[in-house]
Amino acid sequence: MVTFLAGGTGTPKLLDGADRVFDPAAATVVANTGDDVELGGLLVCPDVDTVLFHGGGVLDTETWWGIDGDTTATYEELHRLADAASLDSGPRYLDDDAQTAGREIARWRRFSGVAEFMQIGDRDRAVHLTRTSLLDEGCSLTDVTRTLADAFDLEIDLLPMSDDPVATMIHTPGGPIHFQEYWVHRRADPEVRDVEFRGAATAEPTPAVRDALDDPVIVGPSNPITSLGPMLAMDAVADALASTPVVAVSPFVGSEVFSGPAAELMAGVGREPSTSGVADAYPFADAFVLDEADETQLDRPVVRTDTRMDDSDDAERVARAAKRALAEVA
Amino acid sequence: MVTFLAGGTGTPKLLDGADRVFDPAAATVVANTGDDVELGGLLVCPDVDTVLFHGGGVLDTETWWGIDGDTTATYEELHRLADAASLDSGPRYLDDDAQTAGREIARWRRFSGVAEFMQIGDRDRAVHLTRTSLLDEGCSLTDVTRTLADAFDLEIDLLPMSDDPVATMIHTPGGPIHFQEYWVHRRADPEVRDVEFRGAATAEPTPAVRDALDDPVIVGPSNPITSLGPMLAMDAVADALASTPVVAVSPFVGSEVFSGPAAELMAGVGREPSTSGVADAYPFADAFVLDEADETQLDRPVVRTDTRMDDSDDAERVARAAKRALAEVA
Repeated sequence: MVTFLAGGTGTPKLLDGADRVFDPAAATVVANTGDDVELGGLLVCPDVDTVLFHGGGVLDTETWWGIDGDTTATYEELHRLADAASLDSGPRYLDDDAQTAGREIARWRRFSGVAEFMQIGDRDRAVHLTRTSLLDEGCSLTDVTRTLADAFDLEIDLLPMSDDPVATMIHTPGGPIHFQEYWVHRRADPEVRDVEFRGAATAEPTPAVRDALDDPVIVGPSNPITSLGPMLAMDAVADALASTPVVAVSPFVGSEVFSGPAAELMAGVGREPSTSGVADAYPFADAFVLDEADETQLDRPVVRTDTRMDDSDDAERVARAAKRALAEVA
Repeated sequence: MVTFLAGGTGTPKLLDGADRVFDPAAATVVANTGDDVELGGLLVCPDVDTVLFHGGGVLDTETWWGIDGDTTATYEELHRLADAASLDSGPRYLDDDAQTAGREIARWRRFSGVAEFMQIGDRDRAVHLTRTSLLDEGCSLTDVTRTLADAFDLEIDLLPMSDDPVATMIHTPGGPIHFQEYWVHRRADPEVRDVEFRGAATAEPTPAVRDALDDPVIVGPSNPITSLGPMLAMDAVADALASTPVVAVSPFVGSEVFSGPAAELMAGVGREPSTSGVADAYPFADAFVLDEADETQLDRPVVRTDTRMDDSDDAERVARAAKRALAEVA
């Protein structure tokens, strides 16, 4: 048994070849939910869905989000309507009272769907609609995710990190904004002064996640701050990781990041944007997989390989390195 | 100035030629909202939208609902997901507590979106999404409808009958069901024992509707029970109609109905399913437009014409008859 912690695109790219190294029927993926939003009344879970769509063989692997070949008829009409009625686009937060009303799990990240600021495809939307409706019928996010995994024929067990709300807020000079405003709408442009995981102090990992964290854990090359940070902000997750073998794949080569806003976010919370900074952020990691060009010296075992992942063969290679690293510390 | 009361397809078909007889810039349409539902978190207003889409030149005039040429990618994926995960389809009412939680205006007709039981097109969905999001931003249904009318470039003024919830419930031997379950899902099959307009005792017409009811009124050949009934169930509407000139177009020729479930519904509430029954249901009507083949004798002025409406020329003919009838009583 092995458990992957996933968020963003780093770990999903690793999963693309990991099934040749680790039996998917004995693998669990715990997905970040800090960057979820409620958009036009629908709970959108980008990190859960990247794994869901990948496992279902429908992921758009150009963008690593959304369904391959999906249409966007509703999205386009939303924009036509907003333009025609002179409604401002851009993220439209619901008012403060609404942020803590309605579905508990959507707290602090509730947006109007007028001129939808994140592009939701038409098939993709059906997933959010089914998820949100099952929540409204009384299911937990864990239950709903299993139902969707069933519908997409996933071999791995896919778990959201929590059934409680945790919202990743980026503190900028202009005030706090949700991660999706920072990343999707503002394209990581605002200066990051701090990153807050609102709700994490009272959120709990689910029983299923606690069980999964009894197994050896692989932290894929996801962004340590906003992809892994929401999980680590729950004390019970940090405690569980401290007492199980953990291998982490660095998303950096020295101080160069493969993709995404990891460097800016790490700097924003006062961490060095580098493999050293990742090692500091992961005190629970027992070993690391680093790129063969990464000269960082760490105080824990290291397995080196080419960590660039452009296809499933690359992913298989990195997964084999992670397996060797686990064998050293498990 | 003239005001049309609309619901279902009868009055929208009349509007298709009425603009040649009544200046649309001086016309108001008050639309039924009793058959609205909240489906997967979206407020769907079928009778408002038929007028909206007709006025915007995008109505599917084969079915008289939805947008012409619309795609159904989300709807199809909702059904694929439900099938793949073995989720029961059919109307899935939210539980009793949820029926009176959330958006006030959606009371008593809140359905899960799992296996969406009413087919919503992809562009159509953007309309519901914009409407619901503007409601969540704090707008009234009247405001939102004006915004949508603006986006669709409507010439007429389109008003929902109320900003308060009224839910049309059909009482059947198996218990009460919402009108949309009765009509869309069960295709008018269950025996109708009574029709209830839940909420109507406390709902009020909006100020804009009250103003519109100061003008002469044309009640189109809509179903008197479920298309007009929800409006008439509000005392202030019935009172206003009693004190303004009103012409009603019968949806029957004698005891034959042109289309829809009007006969079953009238019988279900103890009214004769015929033009006579319509006249009894409309004590406020000062004159009627009847089909030239309709031999019903009424105690009020009647203008006869061919009332079958298959195209806009037919509609123009019926509108001219309504104008003549109004001239007799205004």
